[in-house]
Amino acid sequence: MTRRGLLIILSSPSGAGKSTLSKRLLAWDPSLSFSVSATTRAPRPGEVEGQDYHFMEQDSFRQAVAQDGMLEHAYVFGNYYGSPKAPVEAAIKEGRDVLFDIDWQGAQQIVNSSLGPHVLSIFILPPSIAELRRRLEGRGQDSADVIAKRMQKSWDELSHWGSYDFVLVNDDLDRTFEDLKTIVTATRLRRLQQPKLVDHMRALQNEFERLG
Amino acid sequence: MTRRGLLIILSSPSGAGKSTLSKRLLAWDPSLSFSVSATTRAPRPGEVEGQDYHFMEQDSFRQAVAQDGMLEHAYVFGNYYGSPKAPVEAAIKEGRDVLFDIDWQGAQQIVNSSLGPHVLSIFILPPSIAELRRRLEGRGQDSADVIAKRMQKSWDELSHWGSYDFVLVNDDLDRTFEDLKTIVTATRLRRLQQPKLVDHMRALQNEFERLG
Repeated sequence: MTRRGLLIILSSPSGAGKSTLSKRLLAWDPSLSFSVSATTRAPRPGEVEGQDYHFMEQDSFRQAVAQDGMLEHAYVFGNYYGSPKAPVEAAIKEGRDVLFDIDWQGAQQIVNSSLGPHVLSIFILPPSIAELRRRLEGRGQDSADVIAKRMQKSWDELSHWGSYDFVLVNDDLDRTFEDLKTIVTATRLRRLQQPKLVDHMRALQNEFERLG
Repeated sequence: MTRRGLLIILSSPSGAGKSTLSKRLLAWDPSLSFSVSATTRAPRPGEVEGQDYHFMEQDSFRQAVAQDGMLEHAYVFGNYYGSPKAPVEAAIKEGRDVLFDIDWQGAQQIVNSSLGPHVLSIFILPPSIAELRRRLEGRGQDSADVIAKRMQKSWDELSHWGSYDFVLVNDDLDRTFEDLKTIVTATRLRRLQQPKLVDHMRALQNEFERLG
């Protein structure tokens, strides 16, 4: 094995630009695999099984959790959401990095798991609440009540920025994406991501003993 | 204050290319300041006070240590070596990064100090022991005994690679320097290096409360 796969977690309230940044990262590096979340909520129109989500029945989801098949999971407004463990373990075993688009609850569970030392966690902040609101109002078809609820949810998510390795204010998408690439490139060089260093040191030791 | 200065520690046995890499880093970013070590050993021909070292008497050195004036120090073969604290604190207060060319003992002391969270530690490994030896033999004027001693010292230093954040095998100087720049650029973006994030979150909070 030449390197150890990294678990790259991107979190942010919806409306801060996280999905766009995820897509750009995946296009930039095709070796990166995306962790498709599992959920028990019903598919929305246009959502594709295995691409947007893995749609599951509540029983199967609970069983997967009981059998330690989820890296992290949460129960939100009556539905389960989680990250299936098997595809992640397969990818990092091959030295490939995995990208997660999950919230702070999921991030915290993975950081505190045995995979914690291999996590790179990044939080994306919106430049302003006005801008966030503009993006949440989006198509302009929702009631003030629905938008207020989304704003509260965004705020709850925002409040957890302080537990991430990196926090980027997304006031310029291109600039933020450049920073993101630099962070990923550098983190891949971390000692913990380079098990081949152990081989290199072993070779140096043999050589040192031979040469005296 | 827009950012918090970083303490960049470069360690390696002599002969692995550390001095060249340090010089290139300082040329690349003139805002970077170099921590000139203090020592009680006698200056060697050509060494300049305040540039290569701050040369001190043993009494003054011990007094500086007693008055908490050294970030780290060690006693090696009858001489003291240390990093004066004042210039480092002045630089990071202004948001400037400081580069240290110190050994594992010094690195460990700084990592375990209150400045630990602001350290970036990088270890440079030689590609092979043969190459290290070639560089240590250098001018070819030293006895086998002196070279054997240097080799042993290098090996002792090498054995501490496992406690650094990043470990780079210097088999290609240009490539290693590129990696080094990427690591420094990314680490400057770490949440802990960005105290202005706290201001940004405070602004978002005010805005959120105002907009409801």
